[in-house]
Amino acid sequence: MGWDIQSDVPPQPISMATHTIIFISAEAKPKSVQVPTGTLLADAARQAGVEIGQPCGGQGRCGRCAVQVTQGNVRLRSTLRLSNEALEQGYALACQTIIEGDTTVLVPEQEKIERRLTTDRVAAEVRPPVGYDYPHSQSVRRIHLSLDPPSMDDQTDDWSRLQTALRAQVGFETSEISLPLLQSLPATLRAGEWRVTAILAIHPERPTASSARIITLQPGHIDEYSPLWGIAIDIGTTTVSLWLVDLISGKVHAQVAEYNGQIARGEDVISRIMFSSKANGAEEMRTRVLETINGLLDTACKRVQIDAGEIIKATVVGNSTMIHLLLGIPAENIRLTPFITTINQPPLLPAREVGLAIAPDACVDCLPGVASYVGADITAGVLASGQNRLEEVALFLDVGTNGEIVLGSRDWLVTCACSAGPAFEGAGVRNGMRATTGAIEDVWINSETYEPVFRVIGGGKPKGICGSGLIALLAEMFVAGILDKAGSVKRDLPTRRIREGNHGGEYVIAWADETETGEDIVLSRVDVDNLMRAKAAIYAGFSVLAEQVGFILEDVHKVLIGGSFGKYINVEKAVQIGLLPDIPWERFDFLGNTAVRGAYQALLDWRERERVKQIASQMTYIELSADNTFYEAFMSAMFLPHTDLGRFPSVSAVLNKST
Amino acid sequence: MGWDIQSDVPPQPISMATHTIIFISAEAKPKSVQVPTGTLLADAARQAGVEIGQPCGGQGRCGRCAVQVTQGNVRLRSTLRLSNEALEQGYALACQTIIEGDTTVLVPEQEKIERRLTTDRVAAEVRPPVGYDYPHSQSVRRIHLSLDPPSMDDQTDDWSRLQTALRAQVGFETSEISLPLLQSLPATLRAGEWRVTAILAIHPERPTASSARIITLQPGHIDEYSPLWGIAIDIGTTTVSLWLVDLISGKVHAQVAEYNGQIARGEDVISRIMFSSKANGAEEMRTRVLETINGLLDTACKRVQIDAGEIIKATVVGNSTMIHLLLGIPAENIRLTPFITTINQPPLLPAREVGLAIAPDACVDCLPGVASYVGADITAGVLASGQNRLEEVALFLDVGTNGEIVLGSRDWLVTCACSAGPAFEGAGVRNGMRATTGAIEDVWINSETYEPVFRVIGGGKPKGICGSGLIALLAEMFVAGILDKAGSVKRDLPTRRIREGNHGGEYVIAWADETETGEDIVLSRVDVDNLMRAKAAIYAGFSVLAEQVGFILEDVHKVLIGGSFGKYINVEKAVQIGLLPDIPWERFDFLGNTAVRGAYQALLDWRERERVKQIASQMTYIELSADNTFYEAFMSAMFLPHTDLGRFPSVSAVLNKST
Repeated sequence: MGWDIQSDVPPQPISMATHTIIFISAEAKPKSVQVPTGTLLADAARQAGVEIGQPCGGQGRCGRCAVQVTQGNVRLRSTLRLSNEALEQGYALACQTIIEGDTTVLVPEQEKIERRLTTDRVAAEVRPPVGYDYPHSQSVRRIHLSLDPPSMDDQTDDWSRLQTALRAQVGFETSEISLPLLQSLPATLRAGEWRVTAILAIHPERPTASSARIITLQPGHIDEYSPLWGIAIDIGTTTVSLWLVDLISGKVHAQVAEYNGQIARGEDVISRIMFSSKANGAEEMRTRVLETINGLLDTACKRVQIDAGEIIKATVVGNSTMIHLLLGIPAENIRLTPFITTINQPPLLPAREVGLAIAPDACVDCLPGVASYVGADITAGVLASGQNRLEEVALFLDVGTNGEIVLGSRDWLVTCACSAGPAFEGAGVRNGMRATTGAIEDVWINSETYEPVFRVIGGGKPKGICGSGLIALLAEMFVAGILDKAGSVKRDLPTRRIREGNHGGEYVIAWADETETGEDIVLSRVDVDNLMRAKAAIYAGFSVLAEQVGFILEDVHKVLIGGSFGKYINVEKAVQIGLLPDIPWERFDFLGNTAVRGAYQALLDWRERERVKQIASQMTYIELSADNTFYEAFMSAMFLPHTDLGRFPSVSAVLNKST
Repeated sequence: MGWDIQSDVPPQPISMATHTIIFISAEAKPKSVQVPTGTLLADAARQAGVEIGQPCGGQGRCGRCAVQVTQGNVRLRSTLRLSNEALEQGYALACQTIIEGDTTVLVPEQEKIERRLTTDRVAAEVRPPVGYDYPHSQSVRRIHLSLDPPSMDDQTDDWSRLQTALRAQVGFETSEISLPLLQSLPATLRAGEWRVTAILAIHPERPTASSARIITLQPGHIDEYSPLWGIAIDIGTTTVSLWLVDLISGKVHAQVAEYNGQIARGEDVISRIMFSSKANGAEEMRTRVLETINGLLDTACKRVQIDAGEIIKATVVGNSTMIHLLLGIPAENIRLTPFITTINQPPLLPAREVGLAIAPDACVDCLPGVASYVGADITAGVLASGQNRLEEVALFLDVGTNGEIVLGSRDWLVTCACSAGPAFEGAGVRNGMRATTGAIEDVWINSETYEPVFRVIGGGKPKGICGSGLIALLAEMFVAGILDKAGSVKRDLPTRRIREGNHGGEYVIAWADETETGEDIVLSRVDVDNLMRAKAAIYAGFSVLAEQVGFILEDVHKVLIGGSFGKYINVEKAVQIGLLPDIPWERFDFLGNTAVRGAYQALLDWRERERVKQIASQMTYIELSADNTFYEAFMSAMFLPHTDLGRFPSVSAVLNKST
């Protein structure tokens, strides 16, 4: 059924009557649901328990929720992203389709998300900080208490009795306990015959003068040297990482990672915020990320053979949107001018309030962020990179779904966020994809024949191109002379691979018979523009930051690259397209996931935790959208590698050699 | 069907098969439930949603859960409280009956609890404390804040912006906010266009130096002089009282009271504790009392036409068991030697953790108690009575379901609890009943004819005798010469009203044709013994306390009587039976519900709150069951009025006159 023949269907009376919607897919039995007139097809699908991905958050932008209406009466709010051909075949976007009668829908097979997570590679590198010393560094303590049993001569209540022991045996002047722990107190004291093991949250600098908060109480005296479990969590927009750590030795016992379950409701933070602003959207977002984290907890705990209830401390980082969504705090104003977070420094919360499936009174410490688009992942990243201790000026860069930049040293730090967009994660590019099996991750182009050679993740036929592949491809096309400075495809070169596409010139990397999909894999003029905008946004961020503090960008002592993205890119090629500044290669450090590493350091050592706070308060945030020089810097960077070739001497040299 | 003919029923195979239990009652349609072999009939009833009262907590003591098994196969664990006749008719106690086959049960009509609550009488008496001064007394504050709106030049997060205003405009150095309030913060700030009204919990002595905790935030600037609502709650074992108070004027706007919903699961604290120790028992107890309180809140708020969400502070008193059950804290050890509470001084808790349907972050302050049987109702009662400020020694007495006594002055306080039992509340006495319509509340007996005259609550025919009536009856029978010193009924008197009952001599107060029930109302020898044990326990408590501190009881300057019980008794008669010490009448003060009044005082004034804490820590608790002299004192008091008539000169005089 196509929309052009919709008039063949007898018009049905529009009323508040309910309609039967049937969903047919190859993967499962047909499912049906009753909904009233005016229901969004995407909502009907959710009610029927049919999973339809909505990476753009239901804005009709991404086209991933396209379904085929084979029969029925619906109204399309938007036909964006659908060709005339598709519309004729009855395709519609579930997020833009309003039900007006009984309808039958064919759900195309959802592409299963394949996984290429960096778990094992990173695992080998983690070492506890040199000289890590549990008693002086940790804000939690395990202590043994022996209480005098009550008698007719000593009828002190259980809680006062415990407090007396804490005062007499350990020196804590005051102590706090939660209602749930109070509820289990009598049984615990008696099961241990008045000997208990308490885990306390304290201030390690002045342990006895401050108030000790009880996290767990267990009967009997538990081996003092057995591990005391904590977790460090980085909630990335795309990937959530969790490290399970023994707080006594500082050793990382498990590292696990998983796609953020919120992806199904938006790939970037803006889509997530928009989804979370809908009715029940915030609750769904919260539930989805908690399911991801609790799933990771389960995996990590099984691997180490412990119960998640033994985990008594969690340190959490993530961009400001991720932290807001985790805590169920409205993120709406992050998206709207003048871009305001609800909170940058969340208070310490018990795990039961956050919803983490660890000890209910475990301390959950969400590290401080700086602004709407510079969150705790960056302050923790700076800590992990060591930038805050360097005498010389360094540049810290974390390119994830967004790009955040910090310039500075131990004396000063300036930061900004570039809305680079998710082009380097494969979105907004026709054949772009995430770095999973089948993605072209590196490319070389022969400057004479213009024939490419590429490497595919997993080694099979290619399905598309991931971020590192796109950077390499752009650089190679430029150096080989396929692209000019402005990013235009040269038409006059002697190769079939350059051709006229729907949106200007395009380059064919792989022919249909070489690919997994059976279609050509190409890079079009539109793709090139998107990639250039992304790289220009990041480079303009560098320039503006440097200009703001009167520093020459090329003089930076170090370029510290965080995020798993950085682990796979080829610096030479990133410099060639003008994404990274042209400085000697030895000054680049690729650090992997600096966010989770910073969280780990803060988890172990309260002084490191203090340093993150200091980093957050020290950072001067530059709002690029309010900066007059940014637009100019951005336009100057919208060339390959840049308008000012003098800034890219090594690239000039390569170009001179090849011409 | 009687138990003697149970053998006529073919024995059914005992297996884990399930059986159908049908409950038939006059009040509702028959209800049925499927349960496995071995289920307690009382549990089956609960599962079927059939309400069967269990005042003794399911111990088979009270006989109130008797039902008639008309058909089926059950096994009786105990036949206590059932006559042979009743057993023959198939009567069984639901709490003692085990199901072994399909069964049909006739549920007798439950006596509806009638209400005679003291709301209105007390209402007229309450005046705010003299010189009550909100700004110096209250630990909550309403403040207006005007925040600078955010802009591209000032992207401070909402929470920091609010904190800055609190610091700059009011002087609070630090402030705290809960996660739920954070979740509503952005909407509140924007709805009020950056003007908000905050209610804060502060320390009134050093408001700015301490940390202010935010209780509520509302958009705009709300009239500073509009009421600020708080509640004082007394959770009695029998009755829950709630006062709704404007914290600015100190005025009590509503006073409401209601039977504690836990009564259906036990009339005294011991039965409640036993019930709460069963599976889900604690949760049921908590739910029941919360339903009572939240119902009262609803009534009070409707009367004053406010929303319960406007209530931002609650002060709670009750005996230790009631407070434990409210907070879901195990009360089991209160009942077991050496009688240990889990906690005497609960921490401040937010209303949402307690389960009160007021502002979720309202402070709930459960005042401190002293021991298992001397709770916050007594410390608050002492405050309300003023005993803690007296120069001279006074005696404070609160006779409710238990009897608590405090002896002392502003310099020292000793206290004890007498397990008087609920005889004065009408329990354990054949024709005893609560002080509701139909209860004989006062009696006079002619010393020559032995004919009685009595007064009935509500003025109709009598159904039974309440506490004040029992005291009067006992005194009159003694003074008229019907009872001797030892409580034996004299048989040789010329009146039909004295006769031989099932358990010794008894006296008929009302003949069957004069009563509502159509049966004689009598006081038996067993009843007299129970009443004498109760009064002896209380008087022995007085004696032991006085002896412990070397004080002559009759020298007390004041006898301060708390509890609604005290409002109705006749002092002369209470002295005649030896319940109260024989001192001049003018020294007796009847104060009504001192517990809720003390809670009210502590609600209004933080210094009064401090005084309750001081009272609690100052009180020396004497555990009577561990005291060697108590038994002796008790035995001496098991006479009318006492072995030592020298202690009761006014009673001697009356006796000499009448003989």
